[in-house]
Amino acid sequence: MKKKIGVLPGDGIGPEVVAEGIKVLDAIASRFGHKFTYEYALVGAAAIDETGNPLPDETLAVCKRSDAFLFGAIGHPKYDNDPSAKVRPEQGLLKLRKELGLFANIRPVTAYDSLLHMSPLKVDRVMGVDFVVYRELTGGIYFGEKGRTEDTAYDHCTYSYAEIERIAHLAFKAAQNRKKKLTLIDKANVLETSRLWREKVTAMAKEYPDVTLDCMFVDNAAMQMIQNPKQFDVVLTENMFGDIISDEASVIGGSMGLLPSASVGNKTAMFEPIHGSYPQATDQNIANPIATILSVAMLLDHLNLIDEAIEVRQAVNASLHNGMVTQDLSKGQGFGTDRVGDFIVNHIL
Amino acid sequence: MKKKIGVLPGDGIGPEVVAEGIKVLDAIASRFGHKFTYEYALVGAAAIDETGNPLPDETLAVCKRSDAFLFGAIGHPKYDNDPSAKVRPEQGLLKLRKELGLFANIRPVTAYDSLLHMSPLKVDRVMGVDFVVYRELTGGIYFGEKGRTEDTAYDHCTYSYAEIERIAHLAFKAAQNRKKKLTLIDKANVLETSRLWREKVTAMAKEYPDVTLDCMFVDNAAMQMIQNPKQFDVVLTENMFGDIISDEASVIGGSMGLLPSASVGNKTAMFEPIHGSYPQATDQNIANPIATILSVAMLLDHLNLIDEAIEVRQAVNASLHNGMVTQDLSKGQGFGTDRVGDFIVNHIL
Ligand SMILES: CC(C)[C@H](C(=O)O)[C@@H](O)C(=O)O
Ligand SMILES: CC(C)[C@H](C(=O)O)[C@@H](O)C(=O)O
Repeated sequence: MKKKIGVLPGDGIGPEVVAEGIKVLDAIASRFGHKFTYEYALVGAAAIDETGNPLPDETLAVCKRSDAFLFGAIGHPKYDNDPSAKVRPEQGLLKLRKELGLFANIRPVTAYDSLLHMSPLKVDRVMGVDFVVYRELTGGIYFGEKGRTEDTAYDHCTYSYAEIERIAHLAFKAAQNRKKKLTLIDKANVLETSRLWREKVTAMAKEYPDVTLDCMFVDNAAMQMIQNPKQFDVVLTENMFGDIISDEASVIGGSMGLLPSASVGNKTAMFEPIHGSYPQATDQNIANPIATILSVAMLLDHLNLIDEAIEVRQAVNASLHNGMVTQDLSKGQGFGTDRVGDFIVNHIL
Repeated sequence: MKKKIGVLPGDGIGPEVVAEGIKVLDAIASRFGHKFTYEYALVGAAAIDETGNPLPDETLAVCKRSDAFLFGAIGHPKYDNDPSAKVRPEQGLLKLRKELGLFANIRPVTAYDSLLHMSPLKVDRVMGVDFVVYRELTGGIYFGEKGRTEDTAYDHCTYSYAEIERIAHLAFKAAQNRKKKLTLIDKANVLETSRLWREKVTAMAKEYPDVTLDCMFVDNAAMQMIQNPKQFDVVLTENMFGDIISDEASVIGGSMGLLPSASVGNKTAMFEPIHGSYPQATDQNIANPIATILSVAMLLDHLNLIDEAIEVRQAVNASLHNGMVTQDLSKGQGFGTDRVGDFIVNHIL
């Protein structure tokens, strides 16, 4: 099978972990007889440095003509102290989501048995945690009108039935293929947009009689996520709540370095480790490549290359079981980013 | 000293825990020679049942003429499944905050050494946690224009410099009296209102040179709250983020039943346990009265009765150390709500 893959390494450790992801894609191509062609493009601070624009037109074009693309990370310390700077790396990411219509951000949260000692939560709370967050990604307060009037600032949050419907269908379907439980997180006791979400999703539940729908206020959800994360299967929520809740959830398992994500729409889709650009670790060959490699597995799933995705996950499990891991996961020294990638590649080949 | 105290028991376990709070106030009055007069008023589902209104005018009047008031809890299961019902208990609370100008919600989060085994977090993460959240309570998306237009719903979020300034001063001053660290939680990389917060609070920091200001994005804060809650001293944030983050924080110590809160403005102030109406436990004499009793301590602080507040806290500590606690804090049976209140009262007298 021939596929065009966009590659946006971005900033910080992005290029290093993406390099390992590409090695894995190459290994899959050679093992299964596929042809993946890669087009590289600039994004984030790297793009600002070269072009003054965090999302150059050429990058957008590369993504548009790809079947899927791999994204490293964005962000550089020189922008961190001034969030109101005119040009910022994050703007590239927000624009990418909007322009490509990547309306659903999908984040699986899995607690690996071998890593429970690293979780900030007690072992009995996290053992067996396995859920997935569906966060709406192109609507809500992120993209509403915003501005200033004299001494005041405002941000408008809007949602339409259509925006809710398309991601809710994805979430219900995901639940059908999992433990058949969907938790909608909203603030329907206060927000009109949340009432629209609850109304629509509750109505849609009739189309999915095998799925149990649970509606939870976001403040309660933020507690439940720590008190009893095992109760979740598929979590569905709007953009801003999803930003908060999915980051909160990401620490449960104890290892951000393992968590992949997908951002999907109607055409191309983006695959991205959820950790950031982690500037302190840049160019030291210590970054954990597994979140990116598991993002590659999600990319393969998306291209309907199911056996290939399974192969990648098995190779990752082997590296975890054999202690072939970077320093963040090992009590001792840990192996280099490239060595972990090599191990996984060799396991595939 | 003479003081007028409003008493709004509300719903569920509210009346039971508030009764213990009043016993404690009476004990303080007799021990220190004060005269507290109480005016009771209806709020929440209890008020809807009697008057059709979750916040009758008479209740508002009682609060207005009080020096401070104690609030139990609101909420009844019959309203839980229909957040868009025309009349709901929460509306009483929101209106109370707005009408009385209770712009700052203050929530101390303390991990009691003797209760660390109950925390969902590992002991080394929570031992020594001691911070306080200042949540803005009368602005932001809670109170902005909201509505529907055909297939769309909207909620507007607005903040003015003045709204930010008054609570930020309280938070800076609190930090000066504590560990001199203030963490502002916002989403200044996306929201214009957050940029206003960051701008204003950063400028104000110059007036408080002894306080270190740290600005944190809300998604990161939701992670840090679990990864490393010990880093926080005073946390300042806007209404919606405060709702989420303070509930998240409330589970750290392992015992919601101990956490008090204050909602203050320029005139009267409200004191409320942070747990809800907990309908399942109603009228069983099992609810933990300590969150309410510690709210009474905050009320006494607010009335500048500092020794009296210390006395209440010492009595609470004695009850914890002597295992004089309700079932939620005991491995065995636990004592009744009233017995725990009696113990604390006797310790004071
Ligand atoms: C960088 C930022 C704009 C972004 C977001 O808030 O969506 C990030 O936190 C994320 O979750 O991908
Ligand atoms: C009941 C609800 C409206 C309220 C809020 O969101 O403020 C509650 O969650 C709280 O935090 O006191």
